[in-house]
Amino acid sequence: MSPINRQVRLAARPSGLPKDSDWEHREQPLPEPAPGEFVVAVSHISLDPAMRGWMNAGASYIDPVEVGDVMRAGAVGTVSASEHPAFAVGDHVYGMFGVQEHALSDGKGVFEIDTSLASPPTYLGTLGMTGLTAYFGLLDVAKVKQGDTVVVSGAAGAVGSVAGQIAKIKGARAIGIAGGEQKCRWLVDELGFDAAIDYKGEDVKRALREHAPKGVDVYFDNVGGEILDIVLTRLARGARIVICGAVSQYNATQAVRGPSNYLSLLVFRATMAGMVVFDYAERFAEAMTAIAGWMGEGRIVSREHIVDGGVDAFPQALLKLFAGENTGKLVLRVA
Amino acid sequence: MSPINRQVRLAARPSGLPKDSDWEHREQPLPEPAPGEFVVAVSHISLDPAMRGWMNAGASYIDPVEVGDVMRAGAVGTVSASEHPAFAVGDHVYGMFGVQEHALSDGKGVFEIDTSLASPPTYLGTLGMTGLTAYFGLLDVAKVKQGDTVVVSGAAGAVGSVAGQIAKIKGARAIGIAGGEQKCRWLVDELGFDAAIDYKGEDVKRALREHAPKGVDVYFDNVGGEILDIVLTRLARGARIVICGAVSQYNATQAVRGPSNYLSLLVFRATMAGMVVFDYAERFAEAMTAIAGWMGEGRIVSREHIVDGGVDAFPQALLKLFAGENTGKLVLRVA
Repeated sequence: MSPINRQVRLAARPSGLPKDSDWEHREQPLPEPAPGEFVVAVSHISLDPAMRGWMNAGASYIDPVEVGDVMRAGAVGTVSASEHPAFAVGDHVYGMFGVQEHALSDGKGVFEIDTSLASPPTYLGTLGMTGLTAYFGLLDVAKVKQGDTVVVSGAAGAVGSVAGQIAKIKGARAIGIAGGEQKCRWLVDELGFDAAIDYKGEDVKRALREHAPKGVDVYFDNVGGEILDIVLTRLARGARIVICGAVSQYNATQAVRGPSNYLSLLVFRATMAGMVVFDYAERFAEAMTAIAGWMGEGRIVSREHIVDGGVDAFPQALLKLFAGENTGKLVLRVA
Repeated sequence: MSPINRQVRLAARPSGLPKDSDWEHREQPLPEPAPGEFVVAVSHISLDPAMRGWMNAGASYIDPVEVGDVMRAGAVGTVSASEHPAFAVGDHVYGMFGVQEHALSDGKGVFEIDTSLASPPTYLGTLGMTGLTAYFGLLDVAKVKQGDTVVVSGAAGAVGSVAGQIAKIKGARAIGIAGGEQKCRWLVDELGFDAAIDYKGEDVKRALREHAPKGVDVYFDNVGGEILDIVLTRLARGARIVICGAVSQYNATQAVRGPSNYLSLLVFRATMAGMVVFDYAERFAEAMTAIAGWMGEGRIVSREHIVDGGVDAFPQALLKLFAGENTGKLVLRVA
């Protein structure tokens, strides 16, 4: 463990894709816990498309990261010093520890993770916020049911890959949309999706007509943009669209592309609903138990795409996400 | 009654606003009822923004009107000849009789109207499809409840004016958006809206901030376009948007403008749902009884904007609708 605390801070609000100059790499002394506090040695940091939104000024579902602040990030690690009654040295924990090697915490929003059940990075993915997002988005917002045709965009990503697998578990037909043949093969061969559409190599509209001839009952949208517009033309009556994210639009320097085909909501008597996983905090334990159970039975495959290089590699790792280079949950290894 | 049957037929599919050459005025002999049929002498024809959509080719919630066919329209009239056991000469009826003076019908989708309760044109507006649209959109789709802040666009139109009044009856706060001071005064002074915003003369965003400081719980959208985008920025958490129509976009010659701010659905955990009134056919009687009751108590003011000139005046009357020249339900008087 280094005697200093390397951090990545937001240096400027980016326009478009974050540039090197939007970040500041800083070295700080190791934090010391005051009474009621503890220090976490971070082992893995979560990389999420939503981070791009947190870097923008203005009101959203969560306050923006201020310029000069340590970049916000979910992370896992081990308690290395504690003056807190509920957290002991050696405890494995999850929390919003930020892009840094050592985090000071008062315990708020921190929970212990069971590393005998799954490895720490899995708690950033399938057993973390992304898996929970898939769970509540599909079950509570979309109310998926047996026999539904479920289409998931960003299907090879952290949320999408779990959403498709939960759809299968619930007796639905799962169709993934992802970029590249390799990802598509992974969805069908390893995760059990019924079909996958390579938006980089296929005509998505034609492929949807083939794979979802009766229309799409549930669309779990992680990407927005053109794909959302195409799926809107292929809905089944009473379809439910979950707006989980819009990764295709997060780095737009012009106005976000709104769905031109939104009047399909009327034609198909469909619903489009936004969701934020933090609203379901009281039910996280329920969902994690369910997902862990499915993982134990081999019905959910969890995959983490781990990048090395420590916190200083964070800016480049984040760009991988927007380039669609990850398959499964993208995680930065720190320790 | 003329010995011939004047009709207006679709001559060509319009691009943009319908032109004179998109219509054919035809004279036909009076129809004669075969067994199981009857003839209706049409007295009033409904003018609806949705008509513009029916004129386009392609799949929608209803088949398009074919080129050469009598233009589809809801209408009221009196049975003038009958070989049908359930309809007698002299009965006052509502049905999709089309833009013509005399309609042949087999009774499908036709129902008798009680002209002692309200005048025939009211059955095209407040007691017709437009009133029913407001009723089900607000109560079933938006699930409006006491204390909600409800914003209605196209508020001085047939659907919007009833939607705002039902919102008030249900204990909500009603804010109308309409074009022009006169319409806005009518909404507040005559219909009891809490506030009205003149989108032609006011900054809608600023006005919404003033009149709905805690955000918009229900947005009943009849117009789409820029106003939808503005309201999306002023939602309350858990807001429900009803997509009833998008009159600002129906004559667009370029792509429909999608709501760029649709990611507000995520920020505000909001829902956007489309509706088509025909889905509620089994409950029309319930809704008409409720609305008639409120009219009787003076809690709903019904206003029809009646245009004269017979069926030949239909093309010009339709343009009034898209120019926003009507206050209340626009109706063409035939007889």
